[in-house]
Amino acid sequence: MEELDLTELRHGTDLIKKGFARMQQGGVIMDVVTPDQAALAEEAGATAVMALERVPSDIRADGGVARMSHPELIEGIIDCTSIPVMAKARIGHDEEARVLEELGVDMVDESEVLTPADPFFHIDKRKFTIPFVCGCTSMGEAVRRIHEGAAMIRTKGEAGTGNVVCAVQHARLVKSEIAWLQQADESGLTGAIEDIANEFYRLEEASSLIDFELLATPFGDMDELSAGIRSILEDVRTMGRLPVVTFSAGGIATPADAALLMHHGMDGIFVGSGIFKSEDPATTADAIVMATHHFDDAAKVAEACAMMASPMPGLEIDDLEVRLEDRGW
Amino acid sequence: MEELDLTELRHGTDLIKKGFARMQQGGVIMDVVTPDQAALAEEAGATAVMALERVPSDIRADGGVARMSHPELIEGIIDCTSIPVMAKARIGHDEEARVLEELGVDMVDESEVLTPADPFFHIDKRKFTIPFVCGCTSMGEAVRRIHEGAAMIRTKGEAGTGNVVCAVQHARLVKSEIAWLQQADESGLTGAIEDIANEFYRLEEASSLIDFELLATPFGDMDELSAGIRSILEDVRTMGRLPVVTFSAGGIATPADAALLMHHGMDGIFVGSGIFKSEDPATTADAIVMATHHFDDAAKVAEACAMMASPMPGLEIDDLEVRLEDRGW
Repeated sequence: MEELDLTELRHGTDLIKKGFARMQQGGVIMDVVTPDQAALAEEAGATAVMALERVPSDIRADGGVARMSHPELIEGIIDCTSIPVMAKARIGHDEEARVLEELGVDMVDESEVLTPADPFFHIDKRKFTIPFVCGCTSMGEAVRRIHEGAAMIRTKGEAGTGNVVCAVQHARLVKSEIAWLQQADESGLTGAIEDIANEFYRLEEASSLIDFELLATPFGDMDELSAGIRSILEDVRTMGRLPVVTFSAGGIATPADAALLMHHGMDGIFVGSGIFKSEDPATTADAIVMATHHFDDAAKVAEACAMMASPMPGLEIDDLEVRLEDRGW
Repeated sequence: MEELDLTELRHGTDLIKKGFARMQQGGVIMDVVTPDQAALAEEAGATAVMALERVPSDIRADGGVARMSHPELIEGIIDCTSIPVMAKARIGHDEEARVLEELGVDMVDESEVLTPADPFFHIDKRKFTIPFVCGCTSMGEAVRRIHEGAAMIRTKGEAGTGNVVCAVQHARLVKSEIAWLQQADESGLTGAIEDIANEFYRLEEASSLIDFELLATPFGDMDELSAGIRSILEDVRTMGRLPVVTFSAGGIATPADAALLMHHGMDGIFVGSGIFKSEDPATTADAIVMATHHFDDAAKVAEACAMMASPMPGLEIDDLEVRLEDRGW
């Protein structure tokens, strides 16, 4: 009999983590701030909820430092729902992630909606049993997160705006870079690996602070890092997509927005402020789930649009004081 | 008997789409937000109505994200009129266009009055059965839209201002560029094709994000794109005008404004805020239709001007916070 690898059990296998993410595919994950909202989300057919103190548009309006939610709030939401519960930790804040894991959350979102806690590194997600979802604006950023152990990716969009343009931009960029990668030769591939690795270490920004060679990294030296990135890129080439479940997030406010992103090849949708900042959240939740499930059926999407009261009011991207998509790299 | 090409039927032929636009020629298309306004527009002799939640001047005043109108509003207007009904989709929001097509709208306006949804591409209008009208500020922009499948063009003007200066600017630019094109030699033509193609791909803006060659485009590689643009430019040279029906839009507020733009060679007029933000909308609608039909008869235009109560109050272009004409490219 094969010896049981306890380390593997403690850290959760890649298979289990990605398998959990797989269960979300085709679905809608909704931000909720109270048990009542969680119940509404479950009722509408959300595949999971994201437990938060404030939805992104309120975090954006309030300004200041945004942190992990209070455990009581998260536990309250876990207690009242039968669907998976996710919660957000700050970028690079391993300890918030450990606390969330301890609380029995099902997945951690290492999220740019909160204020980043580490200027150099994201959380080493391989050390955790719990799966993580992370944001990206490009294929390279997604590959860095997958190398760190993310089991699921979401394009960042621009959270709290009700403006879908950044989510579309990120979906298009990821898709285009994958198409490029599939036709790249070995020297193209090597160049891409180098670019992705250099960005990983944020060499330029960091070199003014410290000789980067000296900064102890949890992700190995340049050779190990390059080998890891190569292996992920080879999966991407073979599969023609990111090798983990990929959702869209940030600015989705209408059923048509959700269907548009599904047409862009996303596996599912995160809706943050879009539901509980709309005039009639219960109906918005139903309508967005319906449009996501039937994105390829224009009649159903039209029906979902017709169900809506007013969607959330939105913000122009050019008027924003903070671009959340610039947090993380 | 020739075999039936179902694809062609499903996608609508160019002939049918442009034929529909042709039916608008010489006419006035009016923005309406209620069935009552649609009835008034029809009564005044509008050739079509544009169904909206808010006229452009209100969208401008409200700020934030402007999206496709609610299906109920559009259906309400379709139900009460016997003239064609148009409706606006966001630039690059294929799904809003699909929903409008599903609702039975007669033409989609891919409009800069709404907040753009895609930073790189406009809608691939060739995939749709329904015809599209798109805005332009120059001949090149018009040619890009026609290459994407627009069946009708309107110069952009500056919507919601009641200020006609931008509409005149765009009409003059298009006319001048066409005159230049007609006397250009082969090297001039080649240069124009290159310029129009480069702007199509927004090379400068995009190159900071990605090697633009990589951005998967629905409109073909540079060779296909250049061939398409050449063919449109050759039509323009032969015809001495854009090869699709070309209206003026944006800022038209008086009968004299409408007649002025007709004298600039436009095929017809869109009036947005100009009617329902004027003191006496029914009379303004009558007067603008009269001046458009009889633009070449100064006595009739004078008569139309004399009918008017106060036109909509207008805005100085220099004082605007948002220039809608800069949306799209």
